[in-house]
Amino acid sequence: MIETINKTNKGILVIILDGLGDRLTNGYTPLEKAYKPNLDYLASKGILGIVDPIAPGIRPGSDTAHLALLGYDPYKYYTGRGPFEAIGIGMEVKGGDVAFRCNFSTVSPEGVILDRRAGRIREGTKELASAVNGLEIQGVKVLFKESVEHRGALVLRGEGLTSYVEDVDPHQEGLKVEEAKPLKTTPLALKKAALKTSFVLNEFVRLSHEILSNHSVNWERKARGENPANIILPRGAGIVPHLPSFQDKYGLKGVFIAEVGLVKGIARTLGLYTPDYAFATGSYDTEMKQMIDEGRKLLSEHDIVFINIKGCDVAAHDRAFSLKVKTIEKFDKAIVSLRDFQGTLAITADHSSPVSVGDHSGDSVPLLIVGDVRTDSITTFTEREAVRGGLGRIRGVDLMPILLDLAGNAHKYGA
Amino acid sequence: MIETINKTNKGILVIILDGLGDRLTNGYTPLEKAYKPNLDYLASKGILGIVDPIAPGIRPGSDTAHLALLGYDPYKYYTGRGPFEAIGIGMEVKGGDVAFRCNFSTVSPEGVILDRRAGRIREGTKELASAVNGLEIQGVKVLFKESVEHRGALVLRGEGLTSYVEDVDPHQEGLKVEEAKPLKTTPLALKKAALKTSFVLNEFVRLSHEILSNHSVNWERKARGENPANIILPRGAGIVPHLPSFQDKYGLKGVFIAEVGLVKGIARTLGLYTPDYAFATGSYDTEMKQMIDEGRKLLSEHDIVFINIKGCDVAAHDRAFSLKVKTIEKFDKAIVSLRDFQGTLAITADHSSPVSVGDHSGDSVPLLIVGDVRTDSITTFTEREAVRGGLGRIRGVDLMPILLDLAGNAHKYGA
Repeated sequence: MIETINKTNKGILVIILDGLGDRLTNGYTPLEKAYKPNLDYLASKGILGIVDPIAPGIRPGSDTAHLALLGYDPYKYYTGRGPFEAIGIGMEVKGGDVAFRCNFSTVSPEGVILDRRAGRIREGTKELASAVNGLEIQGVKVLFKESVEHRGALVLRGEGLTSYVEDVDPHQEGLKVEEAKPLKTTPLALKKAALKTSFVLNEFVRLSHEILSNHSVNWERKARGENPANIILPRGAGIVPHLPSFQDKYGLKGVFIAEVGLVKGIARTLGLYTPDYAFATGSYDTEMKQMIDEGRKLLSEHDIVFINIKGCDVAAHDRAFSLKVKTIEKFDKAIVSLRDFQGTLAITADHSSPVSVGDHSGDSVPLLIVGDVRTDSITTFTEREAVRGGLGRIRGVDLMPILLDLAGNAHKYGA
Repeated sequence: MIETINKTNKGILVIILDGLGDRLTNGYTPLEKAYKPNLDYLASKGILGIVDPIAPGIRPGSDTAHLALLGYDPYKYYTGRGPFEAIGIGMEVKGGDVAFRCNFSTVSPEGVILDRRAGRIREGTKELASAVNGLEIQGVKVLFKESVEHRGALVLRGEGLTSYVEDVDPHQEGLKVEEAKPLKTTPLALKKAALKTSFVLNEFVRLSHEILSNHSVNWERKARGENPANIILPRGAGIVPHLPSFQDKYGLKGVFIAEVGLVKGIARTLGLYTPDYAFATGSYDTEMKQMIDEGRKLLSEHDIVFINIKGCDVAAHDRAFSLKVKTIEKFDKAIVSLRDFQGTLAITADHSSPVSVGDHSGDSVPLLIVGDVRTDSITTFTEREAVRGGLGRIRGVDLMPILLDLAGNAHKYGA
């Protein structure tokens, strides 16, 4: 139950430019090189600052960064890759499930791993996944879904499970598949659960070998001289955290417009509405303006709308400075209509992705908030200007409290 | 035991302007509009920064904010409204007591709540409170004190009590008074204590009905056609935290000059000396200069003096911009003598109270420290200038360590 003081109907719009932050290339960041009159206009109207999505210098993943920006402390809620891999490929997980990242692999009849990636299999994984999905082992429900190429995720659902189990995947070819067993660090109270989980896991691996070895997809692969995907090797056990829903946490109805599965999956797990749009492609050709227009429309029936736009991160991974600049300029054109937005507007990034690095970095990201704010003297939206703004340096988990407070949706802590 | 390196006799003076921070009204905050040559002179001599009393965006109560500014992490020590309500009305609580907020209410003979506020009773509550104060139930001492109108606080003191009990007050008229019972979330180890506390609480409610029904104050109310205050309904159970005294925590003798009960109560609970001055009214007519002069006098026999001046918060609750400006200007005149203060001086706020909001907000507050500091280029004491100051953005709990360090009273962490 959240008591609010002055709930506005104008709504909160949060735009996350994925991987926007950067370092210097020939003395400038892409934001500094881009022509972006609308962003700069909004900067002159608003307040700026820099954000460490997790903490200074920590390189965020997309999962941990989005948890933090949504106000869920990743140090509390991020319980390993398994659960978020499963969430990312669209599996519906529940608090208490144990999830694993998996590979389709090739083993010899003696159980020696010949190819950890089963010839980087691309076709037929959906059929193979279906063949093992839905098994039940000792009352534990087995959910399995394929991901890209040889990858997939396994979810075990049932009473008395734990993530304190060793990897089955020895991470090296030429070795035998490991027997799952409880981790040496298993707390005494979880020993029984660890034994049960190990048993179920071993049984799943054994069944996967039995079922997949005889699957038509693999007969065809062998006929083509390709390594069969004749076993599934789980690793990276993690227990799915009990995440309070966004609505329970904040008392707000929210939407998350995202282009990629992982972000969409996290938002869906939190109970946010995550519409699918064909025009949101996750690449350079995405229709940013339509995403923003849809977001504004959805604000009429929701309290808060998040939008993640992937392009900048794609350009950074492609190490394409000018493409990143162009993506920023395209975004700037897409937000003309936000010049007169009447609610609380935030524009930021989930992490930096320097073109020179080609991957996520731990650099802070710029943040701009327009609304009932104490404006500052900054009139340009860049990393190096934002640091001199009125917000100073904050963390990802601070964003939601600040926005709720500005929009009049915060409850008082104390009397 | 605190080892100090260079204990100064000049003392630390901390002035907290309650609710000082603000947002923009017609482009300016009250601090920006006020004529305040003395504050600006001190700003030019000192170092500035902004403070999140609790954390960015978190709307502080007066209780949580003062705990933080005194160096007591509210996330550790703030255990609910009950204890701080009791503290606020001047009850002397002890660590381990269980405290409740209460209403005088009107019930029918069948125990149905007819009026949760007993006609917003104003007169006679002191007598009614006396009639139930001091009861003893199963070895548990019952303390009760009236507050404003129909409000009061209940403190249970004894062995084996806990705050894991449901509210007796159903928060709705037309319903029967609830039987107190253990919360569903009660940890196993506290079940017995929860049962005992529930029993004592139910017995107290029953006795309150028996005693108050027959009290002369209520006979008179009925004769006047007013709802009798014939029962006391407790809610919001909280266990009083074991707060280390200020002197034990810092090895310093401290004073807190406050105008309002809640702040005075917190300071007294920490063992700070809290003098009562008739001229400290808690409103616009308060004698700020006398408060400051008394504070300086008390510094001759104490190490640190805190002063809370309430006026700005009152003006904000009244949504009176110009009154807030005038209150700041009055304060500025009151501190002429501090231009040559030789100790460590801090001027800040416990929270922002924007005139446009009319209540506490989560915006940061400005902080100015004069003393043995690395001065900065800021020469005006305002929210938006402070953010560019040499202290950057800190939190409420950081204030005491910084002041102790500047004054030479900090012990080394490590060797």
